[in-house]
Amino acid sequence: MLAPEILAEFAALLGPERARADADTRALYARDETPRSCTPEAVLFPASHDEVAGLVRLALRHKLPLTPRGAGSGNVGGALPAPGSLVVSFECMNRVLEFDPDNRLVVVEPGVVTDDIDRLARSKGLMYAPDPGSGAYCRIGGNLAMNAAGPRAVKYGATRDHVLALRAVTGAGREIRTGSRTTKYATGYDLTRLLVGSEGTLALITEATLRLVPAPERIANLRVCYAGNRAACEAIIRVMRQAVVPSALEFMDRRSIEAIRAYGGAEGLPEGTRAVLMVAADGAHDDVPRQIAALEKALAGEGLIEIQSGFTEEEIARLWTARKSLSMAVKKIAPLKINEDVVVPVTRLAELVEAIDAMGRRHRVPLVAFGHAGNGNLHVNIMVHQDDAEEMERARACRRELVETVMRLAGSLSGEHGIGSEKRGFLPLEIEADTLALMRALKQTFDPQGILNPGKKLPD
Amino acid sequence: MLAPEILAEFAALLGPERARADADTRALYARDETPRSCTPEAVLFPASHDEVAGLVRLALRHKLPLTPRGAGSGNVGGALPAPGSLVVSFECMNRVLEFDPDNRLVVVEPGVVTDDIDRLARSKGLMYAPDPGSGAYCRIGGNLAMNAAGPRAVKYGATRDHVLALRAVTGAGREIRTGSRTTKYATGYDLTRLLVGSEGTLALITEATLRLVPAPERIANLRVCYAGNRAACEAIIRVMRQAVVPSALEFMDRRSIEAIRAYGGAEGLPEGTRAVLMVAADGAHDDVPRQIAALEKALAGEGLIEIQSGFTEEEIARLWTARKSLSMAVKKIAPLKINEDVVVPVTRLAELVEAIDAMGRRHRVPLVAFGHAGNGNLHVNIMVHQDDAEEMERARACRRELVETVMRLAGSLSGEHGIGSEKRGFLPLEIEADTLALMRALKQTFDPQGILNPGKKLPD
Repeated sequence: MLAPEILAEFAALLGPERARADADTRALYARDETPRSCTPEAVLFPASHDEVAGLVRLALRHKLPLTPRGAGSGNVGGALPAPGSLVVSFECMNRVLEFDPDNRLVVVEPGVVTDDIDRLARSKGLMYAPDPGSGAYCRIGGNLAMNAAGPRAVKYGATRDHVLALRAVTGAGREIRTGSRTTKYATGYDLTRLLVGSEGTLALITEATLRLVPAPERIANLRVCYAGNRAACEAIIRVMRQAVVPSALEFMDRRSIEAIRAYGGAEGLPEGTRAVLMVAADGAHDDVPRQIAALEKALAGEGLIEIQSGFTEEEIARLWTARKSLSMAVKKIAPLKINEDVVVPVTRLAELVEAIDAMGRRHRVPLVAFGHAGNGNLHVNIMVHQDDAEEMERARACRRELVETVMRLAGSLSGEHGIGSEKRGFLPLEIEADTLALMRALKQTFDPQGILNPGKKLPD
Repeated sequence: MLAPEILAEFAALLGPERARADADTRALYARDETPRSCTPEAVLFPASHDEVAGLVRLALRHKLPLTPRGAGSGNVGGALPAPGSLVVSFECMNRVLEFDPDNRLVVVEPGVVTDDIDRLARSKGLMYAPDPGSGAYCRIGGNLAMNAAGPRAVKYGATRDHVLALRAVTGAGREIRTGSRTTKYATGYDLTRLLVGSEGTLALITEATLRLVPAPERIANLRVCYAGNRAACEAIIRVMRQAVVPSALEFMDRRSIEAIRAYGGAEGLPEGTRAVLMVAADGAHDDVPRQIAALEKALAGEGLIEIQSGFTEEEIARLWTARKSLSMAVKKIAPLKINEDVVVPVTRLAELVEAIDAMGRRHRVPLVAFGHAGNGNLHVNIMVHQDDAEEMERARACRRELVETVMRLAGSLSGEHGIGSEKRGFLPLEIEADTLALMRALKQTFDPQGILNPGKKLPD
């Protein structure tokens, strides 16, 4: 428990309602989407940049670690409280500070919900391109911390590609401003993109200037059914080899389709379907049909069973029925989903999917793989029963093998979920010792006392 | 002069032909495109990553500063030798190490000429998007150092947006690998983008994995003539307000047009033209006309004199005649061109152009402004006679005023040329003291002895 006189100092800074150490509040902020939990010493709710700067300085004085938190919707323990830490929840910093459609930018505090930014942008014909699956409730601060992405990344890039400038407070309590409001920048070191994806371990972001892009006039979808994983993976390569970049290229593997069938969500999927691609195109009204035709051409090939296109909202919704049921269908397999987010070059996807199949059989754990195949980014879900120690052991071994396979295929540990506490042990498999040492030195430069999100991102 | 026994050590590493301290070689590498020069102690020509690692370690042992150099085509003194330094020229590291069109990437050494990368990409229907004006002779290492860009950046982004991974040697002699071959990455800290634009002050890049994009099937151009600067600037805002992002949006101001007229290059420009926009659209064959029509609509407005479109190579070449003559025309005004590369939000361009006009009159120096207006990025050329001390003094005062104006308009000191030795004194006008201190600390982390490109990027 935090000493009452220290809590009083935080309360003096933030007001008693926004510096809380009661058991209920602490319990509420003890977990994110990982199965583990750890109760923090207190929860702080700053409402402004100055309050963040103040609380970091107080934390420094008392050598108290801080665990920053957006919506707690991450699944690698990025917002899981470190033992003895104070949670800094950004939910009260949820103002849009400026919306400048003519310069295609918006300035937001970290607690703004991602979809709200997109909604605001659309009111002026613009779009905030990154679209994480949790967009309806996640907060932009968490997206910035993890370099979140989503289906549209294959065409538009990830969060990092849409940040122009940041305001932040380092672990040394220094207030910094990075980048520029301009769309070109060759002035200072690029601290902006360094902070994006640093998982709150270098600085606490208090304001972000985000780049907006023109909203497409229209979206169309294809649902493409294949006889097997390999046929679908070959089609992915063909799509990425031609000129039309889809605005989504999502893959569901054989086990995903089996899960959907078992759940009863496969209505409309033709018999023999063992892998599905969901493909989207967006752009000008008159140009989308041309794109769809080019994509259909690339998607056709050996093992193709059916292509269905959807141009209206209803048609699109119908095509997505099976995909939408996947999340619930997977939960039927086993209560706990260990969600591994991995990424490989697109041409290695077939090998990855094949290896996943084999390792699931070998370790006797159900593996369901789906995700953003246009980026080579798969979410591999290991479905387990948390109270079955032997099964959990097999799941661990399987996870280790998955990571090693990804390394062998020149891939990366995380495409969009980040490292958090759950994957940091694997980092030395991907990042060489000297590079890792440099990353640690950077951490030390930004946060000399190590108070910002300890136990995350970098291995001990 | 470098002590012969030290030169011998470098010669033992690189071979005597690639470690040279003769007067001729040293003189050849004494300058870049800035008017100043400084003769280095020696010039080193490494041919591999290992040789770069070896020479950095030798330089560390002897406490010798290194000045990295691409083609020497920069104009802010980025490759201007620091006093007492050894130039590291990357011209012998000019191999394409890998071309992987299916994964849309290419791995190159820093000495490869930029346009050669694009040419290689086009052989497989791809494109390397950044297109600096010096593309025919500049080297990718220099582009990476400066975060170079060009006209296409308005649609495709700058160098930084097209780098997936780097191999490099830090100032501490550590060999690092950053990023990943994958198009999504949420694993380590983003050292890749930190190194891009760091002007060789943090690490020497020895390999770059570059992202390629589908090459457009077709390009079309518009030449748009306006009655004055303000009318053109208003049109720029209208273009950036609608959905079609042009693949170039270039501006020439009133003084540019006057210079072209005086030079005799204005044939075909209608009478009354006092500002010109060159606009491009690219994409699928059947979609480009739609884009051009949308752009024409946005470009029309008060002060428009004429829009001409070009769809064939000949038509396009004809439209560019006036623009192509600008460089030579400007040289007629005065022998020395001080090229200031500044950037402001697009909506502030009109104010910037007006202020440039006023400050040119007030300081009695000819200012010619043109550039990548879709990014708010102008090259402001102060035309002077280097031997006229009084005029040079006025030019300096004018340059200072230009920078202060850009700061007032929420702009940045450099859009694409970088800071080098020539602009670093201005950095404190843009970057706050605490942020600058952090940048210095980063420099110290990467290069503790300060041997990499001293006297560049950061102010003393």
